[in-house]
Order: sequence, then structure tokens, then C-alpha cells
Amino acid sequence: MLKGYNLVGQTESAEGDQYLKVFSTVSQHDLPEKFAVATAAEVDKAVAKAATAFLIYKNLPPVVKAEFLETIADEIMALGDELIQRAMLESGLPEARLVGERGRTTGQLKLFASVVREGSWVEAVIDTALPERKPLPRADLRKMNVPIGPVVVFGASNFPFAFSTLGGDTASALAAGNPVIVKAHASHLGTNELMAGAIHAAIKKCNLPDGVFSFVIGEGAVTGMQLVKHPGVKAVGFTGSYTAGMAIFKAAVNERETPIPVYAEMSSINPVLLLNEKLLQHGDTVATALAGSITLGVGQFCTNPGLLFLTESDAAENFIAKLISLLSAAPAATMLNAGICRSYYKNKKNITGQNGVTVLHEGEDASEDFKGSAALLAVSATDFISNPQLQNEIFGPASLIVKCKNETELQQAISSLHGQLTGTVFATNEDIQHFAGCINQLTEKVGRVVYNSVPTGVEVCHAMVHGGPFPATTDVRSTSVGADAIKRFVRPICLQDCPASFLPDALKNENPLHIMRKVNGVYTNESI
Amino acid sequence: MLKGYNLVGQTESAEGDQYLKVFSTVSQHDLPEKFAVATAAEVDKAVAKAATAFLIYKNLPPVVKAEFLETIADEIMALGDELIQRAMLESGLPEARLVGERGRTTGQLKLFASVVREGSWVEAVIDTALPERKPLPRADLRKMNVPIGPVVVFGASNFPFAFSTLGGDTASALAAGNPVIVKAHASHLGTNELMAGAIHAAIKKCNLPDGVFSFVIGEGAVTGMQLVKHPGVKAVGFTGSYTAGMAIFKAAVNERETPIPVYAEMSSINPVLLLNEKLLQHGDTVATALAGSITLGVGQFCTNPGLLFLTESDAAENFIAKLISLLSAAPAATMLNAGICRSYYKNKKNITGQNGVTVLHEGEDASEDFKGSAALLAVSATDFISNPQLQNEIFGPASLIVKCKNETELQQAISSLHGQLTGTVFATNEDIQHFAGCINQLTEKVGRVVYNSVPTGVEVCHAMVHGGPFPATTDVRSTSVGADAIKRFVRPICLQDCPASFLPDALKNENPLHIMRKVNGVYTNESI
Repeated sequence: MLKGYNLVGQTESAEGDQYLKVFSTVSQHDLPEKFAVATAAEVDKAVAKAATAFLIYKNLPPVVKAEFLETIADEIMALGDELIQRAMLESGLPEARLVGERGRTTGQLKLFASVVREGSWVEAVIDTALPERKPLPRADLRKMNVPIGPVVVFGASNFPFAFSTLGGDTASALAAGNPVIVKAHASHLGTNELMAGAIHAAIKKCNLPDGVFSFVIGEGAVTGMQLVKHPGVKAVGFTGSYTAGMAIFKAAVNERETPIPVYAEMSSINPVLLLNEKLLQHGDTVATALAGSITLGVGQFCTNPGLLFLTESDAAENFIAKLISLLSAAPAATMLNAGICRSYYKNKKNITGQNGVTVLHEGEDASEDFKGSAALLAVSATDFISNPQLQNEIFGPASLIVKCKNETELQQAISSLHGQLTGTVFATNEDIQHFAGCINQLTEKVGRVVYNSVPTGVEVCHAMVHGGPFPATTDVRSTSVGADAIKRFVRPICLQDCPASFLPDALKNENPLHIMRKVNGVYTNESI
Repeated sequence: MLKGYNLVGQTESAEGDQYLKVFSTVSQHDLPEKFAVATAAEVDKAVAKAATAFLIYKNLPPVVKAEFLETIADEIMALGDELIQRAMLESGLPEARLVGERGRTTGQLKLFASVVREGSWVEAVIDTALPERKPLPRADLRKMNVPIGPVVVFGASNFPFAFSTLGGDTASALAAGNPVIVKAHASHLGTNELMAGAIHAAIKKCNLPDGVFSFVIGEGAVTGMQLVKHPGVKAVGFTGSYTAGMAIFKAAVNERETPIPVYAEMSSINPVLLLNEKLLQHGDTVATALAGSITLGVGQFCTNPGLLFLTESDAAENFIAKLISLLSAAPAATMLNAGICRSYYKNKKNITGQNGVTVLHEGEDASEDFKGSAALLAVSATDFISNPQLQNEIFGPASLIVKCKNETELQQAISSLHGQLTGTVFATNEDIQHFAGCINQLTEKVGRVVYNSVPTGVEVCHAMVHGGPFPATTDVRSTSVGADAIKRFVRPICLQDCPASFLPDALKNENPLHIMRKVNGVYTNESI
């Protein structure tokens, strides 16, 4: 039974008199539950509780944080089918996908638990004293990563579990030792409340301070902005639209006394290079893989392949014909919410109206049923290069083929690209050698280069980079998926001549945590 | 013989018709040489050359970059006494200090050479493929740090070698594999030109691309801003004033199509906690150390201790008396440039005019001779907490004592602090235990905590953090001194299923660079 409250620390709170409802693209109606918009006072209270909790939580031993993350994962599973059913209703996503996404979400929490347990993520560096050094002695200097402070998380509608309330941003911020305040996503407020119940239970079981987690409900421009501008907030994680992401990013610099880092993952059209030999040898296989990737989840993935580069040839024409036939056979499917569906058709229309764009396939307009149908467009490299509008993201199952006359045009088209999460290369080894210059240039534009498979499907592991140059993200130095996402929410601190008994465990001579450290320039997990 | 050119790539260039001269606080006149201000076209050319050089330089083997850095160090030494003499004239700094700073600068280049040679700074992470995994196989994923692209460096006047043309920002950016464009500091244009000669010679000897290094001359608001806003520039390193740093930081977010990271180190007053037992046992020693630190280099260090916290006691009074007598004996000394000297007296006057501030010692006004004299001021904790103006930096040999009635006031005063590079704790172990809450809170405000020695003197080593919360820097996650300064100028990239023969050395199974890597979650320098 959903209650429609905010969670201010571990207190259910609904002090305001404004409410939100969730529109379901499945039932095509507002769902009955009312969710209380947080008042400014409730937001303040959540941040104050986070600040108090921080001074305790940050200093708890790694094993406590690891067990907390694992308990959250268990509690998510304990929510059972209610979670899946609610998320289906709120997101329009099918059951199998949501069951899979739940697994990814608990797996993500467990990955960060393992990272915290292992402990080397603090990147301890020790330079021991050199009292006899001339002309001056060297002090004892010891450095490690420490948590940055309370983190605000804005989730995404397209991953109601893995990129929302208890998704990667929350998991990595908690793992680093920071309290989290979630701005609940208006598309899945029921799912959010259920998920918050799971972390609420975990906080109780692990006996952690009240303010380690809060969520608040409200409009991004009001409640969200209050959080972003709050002096007690030290960093922001965001996944969503370019417009919202940039508003947050700029507010964090311009409208605060103390600017804070914003990790916004915003907009990517994920270029794919389809090289000659590969198309000649395996054109049909590549077309099948790409058709699946373009339409997967009704194209509502940040890694959806929205741009296909090829050089003109018979093989390229065969590939295009195959892709058209596959996309034509894909049925329209329910999208995440009414706004995304509306934007899909609008943004697609904007691209088809641009100079030189031809429509190779366009499914029926099923927007009345909140369904998206696939589309394949084409344009010449010359038109593509001269028109940056063609790089605007169409969030949905549409892709634009850029036809290049030759390698020079291909290289020019690639160098005109904006920043991207991924760049995909379908190529034989011979192609890779031949097009090394193009691939080198593509690498400068992206956070992940995928060879001979599709960019959708982001593995949660140690080596993942889900990030990339602007406008894919606001911070090219970071990843929002994978173990290193934890590094976004830390800062380094150096202790100089700190008496041994007051050193944190990670910096003690004995290395009680048995972590990998750099000691006088040498990596070792030995004691000193 | 100085020529007064810009260095656009390795071409001496002076296309404009505007010139700058350097005013010497030593000779108290303009020095005779004219330095040509760069035209907009020259700035463009420098960036274009850097972009071209980047695609080559980034892919050169580590050993080439290490040898380059070592050669620059050798070429600096080869400049001999001409460099020292010119820097003395331009900076007002004494010979011994500049000889020491030169050693630090060449040592810094060699440290980064050793970091690049060792190679683990790329933080290679490998998750090998799991083709049999259910429900889905895992791809082969390999991640590493790569250089971010052309970096612009703004040097500081107070370290004409170590934080300027070939200082830490330039050394770390080059080490990471990025070309550098220096905006020459107007206070030491001759020193800049000599230093540029050293890197010019190194580029020739190491046979590196032309655009790996450039410098341009001009006003920060014109030439500097053109660089910051240039689409070809990918990151900025800056050391200097709050006003200039913030102008750059905001321009990089608001006035570019593609925001870029700015590492500005700006303003810090470096609080010192003087705890009871320590003052009782060693008050005179502490006073002597602090008097030396306050007046060192005429107080012109970013780590100068500008704020001294103590709780009222007889020991505190004795300490203050001793500090007054030591500072009174310190002669006024020549400051770096006319602007800094003017600001010193102006900012000091602004603080002495604030509510509740008393003057314990104030040396003569020697501004006509461009000399700074020491000052010691005092204020109550209550007045300090209520007036943020008292946290404005006085760049020079002045310090403000904050007198707290008790531990509660001390804790409140500390929590009202802005972000700082350093926080110093003079304390016995008993004090540390007793004041653990205060020290915990101080730690949240700073990048480095120093125990029982002075904050001035920043060791260039692996474990240093020279950074801290805003306004000390614009990026609390970074350090501008020490080996990890290299991490500011990199971004991660992930290669998915990249054919083995096309992997960079750092990610090859064989681990030909013998670096420390994280393979399937385990740190190892073994091959796979």
C-alpha cells in the first residue's frame, strides 16, 4: 500500500498541500495514488539530517558500509513482485526487462560492496619521512580518498531501478561514505517509494544514522533546484535530458556561493562506423544486430545507436536494404511516459525536415497509444557536417545513416561529431588497420569504443566507462557505471606528520586493511 | 638576450603592435625589454598547432615523454645564472630562494618523468570476457586513462619557476600526454622567455611535434580569455587570485559551447589550531616556527598561515607576546610586484577596519619601496564567526588571531571556515584526543592537515595534496602539486572487445609495460 510521503531521514513526511500523480502509458490514465510534494522546510530538514549523518557515516569501517549495501540488495529482493508490477505500470517496460534490471541493480550494490570491502579504492599513497634529507628533511605524508559529503541524486525514467532511487549514483555515493538525498523521479513515484522502503529497512537493520538517506518529491525546477543550490549539498549525480542537466550544472556553478561538481549524463547519439570489408563479409549479421539495438527498449537507451556512418558501396546498399526490412517488421511499442513519446515524434519530425534528409523507413504514428515506431533516415556526409541540428538526440527507435563518398568524407564527418557515450566500430582487422585515422578520431569523441557488437547493454563491472565528452556528460573525467563511479564522490586529503595512533586504518604502517597502496612510489599491499 | 616574442609552436612570433614591459620592485623601474602582445591570430595558431600535435604526442611511448621531461629539466639547468638573475630582477625574490625553487622545478619534472616511466598512473582496469556467462555473456572490457587534450596554463607570480611556464601544471599536463599553451605571466616575461627556451631546446632534441608547447603574451582578460574560450582547448590550470580564477572558471562553463575543467588554485588563509597543552609545553617554539612561516617569502605563499585559533589561557597570552616580539623584529622586505604590494596594504587595512579587530603589531608602511612589513591582528571568535569578510585573504606577512573562550566557540569558529588548502594543528597527543571533534571538522575544510609543523613548504612527492574545498580551489577532487596532479589532465576510456593486436600496451594481456593493473577485480602486475 503506497502512502505518498517524502522520506526525510527515516521519517515519513507530508507537510505540504500539493500532490503529484503518475500517468501510466500502459493504463493510459493517471494512477490513483497521490504523492505529497516536499515543502522547502522538508527539503532543508533532509539536507540538515544528511550533514549530521555524514560526520558519523564517513568514519564507519568499510565492512559496515559493505554490509549496508548488501542489505539494501536483499531488501530490494524482499519487495518481491509488488515492485515489478508497480514499475511495469509506471514505466511501460515489460516484466522480463524489469526483472533483469532488478538483478542489475542488486548486482551493482554488491559490486560496490565488494569494492568497499576490498578497500583499495581509497588510493592510499604514503611517502615516509626522510629526516636526514639535505638541504631539508621530508615530512611524513600520507594521502587517501575520503567522501565528499551529502550527494543529491536525480534518477532517470528509462531505468526505474538501475539509474533511479537505489541505482548506480546512490550506490556509489553511499559506498564512498556519503549520505544521499534522492529527488524522486515524477514518472515512477510508486516505484521510488517501494525502493525507499528497502533502504529504510537496511538502515534500521544496520543501525545507521537517520540522515544517511532521504527522498523528496517535486518538480525539478523547484524542489530539484532547491537541493542543487543548498549549501549543505556537496555533489550531484543526474541522468536525464540535456536541458535539465545543463540547468543543474550551471546552477551549481553560478547560483551557489560554493560551486560543487555535477555529474550529469545527458545526451548521446552513439555513432556507429560500418566499415567496408565488414559489410561485405557480414552485412546481414551487422544489420540484424543493429536493428535489435535500435529498437531495444523502444530505443529508450542512452547508448541507442542513433547515427550510422558508412561509405557508399554495393555492400552498404545491401546492408541498408536489410536494415529497412528488419525495422519495418518491428512493431510499435509502449514508451516510458507521455512526455518522452511526444518528444520522440517531435524530434524525429524535426530531423526529417532538415535539409537533405531522406526517410528510408518510418513506422506509423502511434503516439495516441503512447507507442513509438521505428524509423530509419539518411543524409549525405556534406549535409551532415554542415548542420549541427542533425546531432540532436531523438530519444527513441530512430537512426540516421550518414552516407560518405569516401574515407576523407568519413573522417571529416567523424571530426564534426559532438561528444558521445559510445562509439561503435564494425570492422574486420583489415578495416581497423586501414581506417586507423578515423578510429583514432572517434576515440577522441567518446567514453567507450565498442568493436563488432552493439553499444546497448552496459556491463556493470570494474572496467566500464559510461561517460564521455560533453554533451554526453558534464564531466569527461568520470563514469556513472562501474566500480570507478565511486571516484566521483570523493576528494583526496593529505595528512602530514600525523601521529601514528591517529592515522586512519588505510594509512597505518601495519596496513590492517591489506589494501594496495603506493609507498614511496612503489605499489604494494605489504605493511611498512 | 631577450627578444620579446611569443612562441607559437616552435616559431618565434611577434605580429602585433602592442607591447608589455615588466616593472621591477627591485630596481623600482620598468625593465627595458619590450614584449609583444599576441594577436588573436597568433593565439588561434598556437591552439591549432596544439590540436595537431596532440594526435601524435598522445600516442608516443611513455619513455619518450619521460625523456622529454628530463631533457627539459637539464635545459633549465643549462640556462645557468642568467635565469636566476632575471628572475631576481622580475620577482624581487632573493637568489637562494630562486636557486632552491629551480631545484624544486627540475625535481618536479623528474618526478613526473618517473611517474610516466613507471606507467601505472594510467590506472588500467581489465575485465576479461566471460563467453559462457548466463543469462548473457560478458564482453572483454579494458579501461585506462588517456590525455584530455590541449591544456592552457596560467602561472603564478609568487613561484616564477615552480608554478609558472614550466611549473607543475605544465609538467603534469605534458606528462599525461597533452600539449600545453602557457599564458605568460606579465610579472616575469623575461623569466618566461628563458624558460620557454629550455623547452624549445628539449622539443628539438627529442624530435617532438612543433605544437607540443606554445606561450602567448597579453592581458588575462583578453589573451587569457581567448584561450579559455577557444574550442580547441580541453582543460585549464591556473594559480592566482580569486577574481581572476573565478572569471576563468565561469567562462569555461558559461561562455563555451563545450564546458571544460578548470583547476584554479585561488585563495586560502590556512587556519592554524593552537591547542592548550601544546602551547603550555612548547609555546615559544611554536611562536618561533609560526613567525618564520608568516614572514617567509614576505608572506607571499598560498599556504601562508593567516588565521590562528586559540582558546584563552595564560599560555595563549605568553604565546601571543612571543609572536608579537618576533614579528616586530622582522624587517620589511621587497614584494613580488607593485600590484601585490598595493593589495597587501589595502587588504590589511580592510581587515583592521572590521568590527572588533585589534592590532597587536603592525610594521611601518613601506609600500613606497614596494616592501611588505609584518602584522598581527586579533579578534574574538564571536566577531569572527559573524563576519565572513574576516576570511578574505591578505596576501602577505599578516595573520589574524581568533580568540575563543572555550572549546565550543573553537568548534563553531572552525565550522564557519571557508575551504582551505591547509589546516595546521599544533597539539600534543592528549590535545588531539581531547579536540578530536574540532580536528574532524577542520579536516572537512582543507586538503592537507599538518601536525606540529608549519603549512608553508609544499613537498613535491607522491602523497601531496595541494588542493582543497572552494574557494581554495575550484575543484576539491584535485591536487596541483605531487604525482597525482597528472590525473587532472586525463579522462578514462573503455575499449570493448578490441582485437588484441590493436590494444594499447597498457591494456595488452602480456602487460609489456609491467604496470600495476586491476584485472577482474584483483590488483596485479602480472600478465594475463
